[in-house]
Amino acid sequence: MRFASDNTSGAAPEIINAVLRANEGYERSYGADAAMARVTAMIREVFEAPEAAVYLVATGTAANALSIATYCPPWGAVFCHTHAHIAEDECGAPEFYSGAKLVLVPGALGKMTPDTLEKALASTGEGGVHGVQRGMLSLTNVTEAGTVYTPAEIAALTALARARDLPCHLDGARFANALVATGATPAEMTWKAGIDVLSFGGTKNGCLGVEAVVLFDPSKAWEFELRRKRGGQLFSKHRFLSAQMEAYLTDGLWLNLAARANAMGQRLATGLKAKGVTVPDSSANMLFPEWSPGIHDRLEAAGAVYYRMPAPQGRERARLVTSWSTTETDVDSFLAAL
Amino acid sequence: MRFASDNTSGAAPEIINAVLRANEGYERSYGADAAMARVTAMIREVFEAPEAAVYLVATGTAANALSIATYCPPWGAVFCHTHAHIAEDECGAPEFYSGAKLVLVPGALGKMTPDTLEKALASTGEGGVHGVQRGMLSLTNVTEAGTVYTPAEIAALTALARARDLPCHLDGARFANALVATGATPAEMTWKAGIDVLSFGGTKNGCLGVEAVVLFDPSKAWEFELRRKRGGQLFSKHRFLSAQMEAYLTDGLWLNLAARANAMGQRLATGLKAKGVTVPDSSANMLFPEWSPGIHDRLEAAGAVYYRMPAPQGRERARLVTSWSTTETDVDSFLAAL
Amino acid sequence: MRFASDNTSGAAPEIINAVLRANEGYERSYGADAAMARVTAMIREVFEAPEAAVYLVATGTAANALSIATYCPPWGAVFCHTHAHIAEDECGAPEFYSGAKLVLVPGALGKMTPDTLEKALASTGEGGVHGVQRGMLSLTNVTEAGTVYTPAEIAALTALARARDLPCHLDGARFANALVATGATPAEMTWKAGIDVLSFGGTKNGCLGVEAVVLFDPSKAWEFELRRKRGGQLFSKHRFLSAQMEAYLTDGLWLNLAARANAMGQRLATGLKAKGVTVPDSSANMLFPEWSPGIHDRLEAAGAVYYRMPAPQGRERARLVTSWSTTETDVDSFLAAL
Amino acid sequence: MRFASDNTSGAAPEIINAVLRANEGYERSYGADAAMARVTAMIREVFEAPEAAVYLVATGTAANALSIATYCPPWGAVFCHTHAHIAEDECGAPEFYSGAKLVLVPGALGKMTPDTLEKALASTGEGGVHGVQRGMLSLTNVTEAGTVYTPAEIAALTALARARDLPCHLDGARFANALVATGATPAEMTWKAGIDVLSFGGTKNGCLGVEAVVLFDPSKAWEFELRRKRGGQLFSKHRFLSAQMEAYLTDGLWLNLAARANAMGQRLATGLKAKGVTVPDSSANMLFPEWSPGIHDRLEAAGAVYYRMPAPQGRERARLVTSWSTTETDVDSFLAAL
Repeated sequence: MRFASDNTSGAAPEIINAVLRANEGYERSYGADAAMARVTAMIREVFEAPEAAVYLVATGTAANALSIATYCPPWGAVFCHTHAHIAEDECGAPEFYSGAKLVLVPGALGKMTPDTLEKALASTGEGGVHGVQRGMLSLTNVTEAGTVYTPAEIAALTALARARDLPCHLDGARFANALVATGATPAEMTWKAGIDVLSFGGTKNGCLGVEAVVLFDPSKAWEFELRRKRGGQLFSKHRFLSAQMEAYLTDGLWLNLAARANAMGQRLATGLKAKGVTVPDSSANMLFPEWSPGIHDRLEAAGAVYYRMPAPQGRERARLVTSWSTTETDVDSFLAAL
Repeated sequence: MRFASDNTSGAAPEIINAVLRANEGYERSYGADAAMARVTAMIREVFEAPEAAVYLVATGTAANALSIATYCPPWGAVFCHTHAHIAEDECGAPEFYSGAKLVLVPGALGKMTPDTLEKALASTGEGGVHGVQRGMLSLTNVTEAGTVYTPAEIAALTALARARDLPCHLDGARFANALVATGATPAEMTWKAGIDVLSFGGTKNGCLGVEAVVLFDPSKAWEFELRRKRGGQLFSKHRFLSAQMEAYLTDGLWLNLAARANAMGQRLATGLKAKGVTVPDSSANMLFPEWSPGIHDRLEAAGAVYYRMPAPQGRERARLVTSWSTTETDVDSFLAAL
Repeated sequence: MRFASDNTSGAAPEIINAVLRANEGYERSYGADAAMARVTAMIREVFEAPEAAVYLVATGTAANALSIATYCPPWGAVFCHTHAHIAEDECGAPEFYSGAKLVLVPGALGKMTPDTLEKALASTGEGGVHGVQRGMLSLTNVTEAGTVYTPAEIAALTALARARDLPCHLDGARFANALVATGATPAEMTWKAGIDVLSFGGTKNGCLGVEAVVLFDPSKAWEFELRRKRGGQLFSKHRFLSAQMEAYLTDGLWLNLAARANAMGQRLATGLKAKGVTVPDSSANMLFPEWSPGIHDRLEAAGAVYYRMPAPQGRERARLVTSWSTTETDVDSFLAAL
Repeated sequence: MRFASDNTSGAAPEIINAVLRANEGYERSYGADAAMARVTAMIREVFEAPEAAVYLVATGTAANALSIATYCPPWGAVFCHTHAHIAEDECGAPEFYSGAKLVLVPGALGKMTPDTLEKALASTGEGGVHGVQRGMLSLTNVTEAGTVYTPAEIAALTALARARDLPCHLDGARFANALVATGATPAEMTWKAGIDVLSFGGTKNGCLGVEAVVLFDPSKAWEFELRRKRGGQLFSKHRFLSAQMEAYLTDGLWLNLAARANAMGQRLATGLKAKGVTVPDSSANMLFPEWSPGIHDRLEAAGAVYYRMPAPQGRERARLVTSWSTTETDVDSFLAAL
C-alpha cells in the first residue's frame, strides 16, 4: 500500500541485473562506453528518428533544465502549465540553467488548452525590448495532475508555438505511462506531434536513476554536451547509466513496466469509483481521488502511504501513484481498508 | 594494463552488492532514506566531526561546484592551482554554479606553495570595488599531478586564507588515496588542517557514482540543499547513492581500496625507476613518467591503455593511473612490455 | 499634449543647470566626488535615516534589479504585483541580476492586497527543498495602474512579509508623486512602513537620468557596491549623477516637480470626468481613462500623444501621464480636443 | 597637475552644450529619439560601415560586458591580456553578463603578441567537453599600459582568432587616442583589421558618460538590444546619451580632443625624458614613468595628483594620464616640480 510516488519503488530486476553485468572489466568513461552507442541506436529506432542526438543524465530536473537551457535564450519565456514540475518542483533549476522566465499557462486538470496557451503567447513579447520574448513551449505528459495529453492535443499546442517559431519540449518523466495510456507510438507522441526535445524518463518507471534527453534535430547536440558537462551532469562511470537505459529499452521492458503501473492505477480507479469515490479523469498511474473527511486517518492507520493534498472545504483529497512494482494485493488491500 | 583513469574501473564487489541489497522494497526518496541517516553518522564519526552536514551527489564536478557556490560569493575569487580540476576539467562548472572567478596559483608538480598563494592573495581585491574580492581557497588532494599535500602543507596554505577570513575547500576526488599516502586521519587532513568543506570522492575509488560533500560547520547546510536541488543534483531514488557510500565506509573498505590502488602505483613507480625511467614525485596512484621516444608505440602495441601527455622536446610522457582493481599482473606485464 | 510618459519630458531647469555647474574642473571619479557625500547626507535627512547607505545609478531597472539581487537569494521568490514594472517591463533584469523567481500577486488597479499577498506567501516554499523559498516583497508606488498605496497599506503588506523575515523593497520610480498624493513623509512611506530598500526615482520627475538606491540598514552596503560595479552601473564621471540628485533634493525641488505633475494629472481627471469619461481611481500623475470608440483617432488628429491600451469590447482606453513639464494649456487643449 | 585619470576631467564645452540643447521639449524615450538616428548614420559614415548596428550605453564596463555576452557563449573562453580592463577592473562584469571565462594572455607593455595568443589558443578547448571552448578575442587599444596597437598588429592577432572562427572585440575606451597615435582611420583600426564589435569610448575623452557599441555585422543587433535592456543599461531619457555622442562626432571634435590629450601626453613624455626619467613606450595619453625614490612625495607636495604604481625595488613608478582638458601649464608645472 505504498502510493506516495513511483520514485519510492526500487529498480526492476532486469535493470538492476544489467547494472551488475555492466560492472565487468574496464570501460571508457564520460559517455564513450560501448553501451551508450547501443542506447543511441535503440532510441533512434524506437522513435523512428535516425538523426536524433541522445544523452543520458541521472535526474529529471537535470534533463528538463538542460533541455530548456539548450533551446531557450536567457531573455525568453518558457510557456508551461501553472503546476508544471519545472514550475513548482525544481527549485528554479530551469531558470538557473537557462536564465529564462517561466510564463504560467492555466488549464484544468494539469493541461493547458489551445485557448489558454494562445492567450499567453499573445500577451508576451508585445512590448518590444521591454519584456521577455516568446522563447519555447514546455509540456508535460503524463501531467502533474495525472491526466494525459493525446498526440492530437499535443500537436494542437505545438502548432501554436511553431507558428511563432518556438521550439517545443516535452517533459516525459512518465512518458512510458503516457504512451500506454494513449496507445500512441513514441514518434506520434513526440516529433510527429511537433516536439523538438524530450526528457525521456527512466527513473520513475523502474530504473535506479537515468533519464535520456532526445534532440530530434541534432544541430544543438554539441551545445547540449557542453551544458551537461558544465552542469556537473556528465558521469565518469557513464556505463552505469547506459546499462540501465539499454535494459530499459530491451524487449519492450519500459512499456511493460508502464503497462503494469497503469493497470494498477486503473484497478485502483475502478475500485474507488465502485465505492463512490470521486476520481477525476486519470488514465495513467496517478490518481487524485476525493472523499469524505476521516478516510485519510483510516487509511493511514491501515498502513497506506501517500500524499494528502489540499481539498475543497469538507472534503479530503489524496495523491495516489502506482508503479511497476505495485501489486494487485496492494490495490485490493487499499480498497478494503477504505 | 588499463591505466587511463581510475574511472575506467568498475565498482568494487562490496559496493555493487550494496546497491543490489538497497533495491529491496519501498524507500523514501530525495535523501530521506534510512541509509542516508546512517551515512551521515558514519562520516561524522570517521571525520570526528559530530556537527558536520553531509550530502551526496553523483559527480565530482557537482560536488566541487556546489561547494564553491555555497562558500564563495559571485564577486569572489577562488584561489586554485593553475592545473586544478576545477580550472581545467569542469568546463566552467564552478563559475556557472557560483558566478565566482578562478584565480590561478602556480606551483611545481600540481601544488601551490605558501609563497605563490600569498602572492595571489596579496594581489587580489586591492583595487576596492573595481576588482573581484578574495573569496575562498580550493585545494586538491591528491593533486592533478599525482602529488600529495601533507596535512601540514594544507594547514600552511589554509592559514594564509583564514588570516583573511576565507573559507577553504578541499577537492578530494582521490581523498582516500591521499590519506593512505600520508598516513593522516580524515580529521587531520581536513578540519584540523583548516578545511571548511570537502568533496569526498567515492566514484574513482570503487563506487559507481557517488561523492559526499562534508560541511564541517553546518551553518550553510540548508543553502547547500537548495543549491543541490536547484542544480538538478538531488536524486529521487537517493537510496542508491546512500547504499554506495554506506558500503564504501563500512569496515574501512574505502581505505583498503585506496591502499590497493596506491600499492599498485608504487609497484609501478619502483619498476619504472628500476628501468631508468624518470618518475616525478608521486606517492599515490597517479604517475607521470618520462621516457625516450618510441616507447608509447611499443606499449600500446602490447595493449597498454593510458594517456599520452605533452612532453619536453625529444621525450615522451605518460599519465598512468592505478585503481582498486589494478592487479600485480597488470603492473608487471606493463613493465615487461616496456 | 504629450502624455505618453513622464520620461518623454526633459530635465527641469534646476537640474540641468546643476549638471552644467558640476562640469567645472577636476573631480574624483566612481562615486568619490564631493557632491555624493552631500547627496548621502541630504537623503539621510530627508528620510530621517541617519544610518542609511545611499547609491546612485542611472536607470530604474538598474535600481530595482540591484536592490533585489542584494536582498533575495537565487532560490528566493520575489512577491510582486502581476503587472509590476519588474515583472513586465524590465526584460527579466531582476532575474538576471538576482537569479530569483518572481511570484505574481494579483490585485485590482495595480495593488496587491493583504489577502492576495497572504495567499501567495502561504503557497510558496511549503514543498521544502523542491520549490523556491520565500525571498522578498517588492511593492511599487505609484503603481503601474496609476494608483497609490498609503503608508498604512504598505505597512499592512510588509507586516505579512516581515512576519516571515522577508525583506521589503519599494520601487519608487514615481516615489515623489506618491508622497504628494498621500501627504506622507518619506520616512512614513518607507522604513516606518517596513521598507528595507528603496528605488528612489529621479529620472521621470525632472532629472536626466538618476535613481538613488537607499538601504535603510547599511549592513549590505558593500555587497551593493560590488553588485553595482559588477553590473556595469558604476559611473566614472559620477559627479554628473550626484549633481542631478543634489539639485533634485535642494529646496524641495523634487516635491515641487511632483506636485506640479500631480496637479496636472488631477486637472485632467477632473476635466475628463466632467465630460462623462470613466477615470479609474488615480490620485497621482497617471490616468487610464475609458471612453467611446473613435475618440483615439480624434485626439491623435488633434496632436495628442499617448499610449492606447487594451480595452473592453466596444470601448477605448488610454494611458495618460503628466509630468513636471505639463502645462495647463496642454491639459485644457486635450480636454477641448476630446 | 591632475593626472589621475582622464575620467576626472569634466565634459568638453561642445558636449555639455549639446546636452543643454537636447533638453528642449518632448522626445521619444528608450533610444527612439531623433538624435539617435543621426548618431547611427554618423558612426556608419565615420567607420565606412553602412550596415553597422550602433547602440549607446553609459559606462565602458557595460559596453564591454554586453559586447562579450553577445558574442561569446557561456562555455567560451575570452582571450584577453593579463592586465586587460575586463580582467582586472570590472569586478567580473564580463563573466556576469556572459557566463564566459577569461583566459589571460601575457605580453610586455600591455600587449599580447601573436606568439602568446597562439599559445593560449592552442592550449584551450583541446580536452573536448571537459574544458571551456575557444570563444572570442578581446583586445584593448589604447592598452592599459598606455601602449598602442597598430592596425597591422591588430590584424595579426585577429587573424589567429578568425582562423578558428572566433569573433573579435576591441575595447576602445580610449579609441580616439589610439587613432590619433597611429594615424589610422576608424575602419582601418576595426573591421578592416578583423574587429567584429567595438566599445567606442566617449566618456574618458570629453563626454559626461556615453559609450557606443558598434556591431559591424548587424546580425546580432536584436540580441544586443535585449541584453542591454535586461542589463538595466537602456536609458529612458536616451536623448541625453545621443546628444553627447552626436556632438562628439560633429566636426571631428572627438579626434581633436584626443589630439589635445595625446599632445599633452607627448609633451609630458618629452619633458620627463629630458630630465632623465625612464618612460616606457607610450604614444598616446597615458605614461608610466619610473624615477628615483622621494619624487612621489615631492610632486604630491607640489600639488600633483596621480596614481602611485608598484615599482621595482629602489624605484618609484607613476601612472600619469592626460586628457582633453590638460593644459601646457599643467604639464610644465609638473615638470618643474619634478
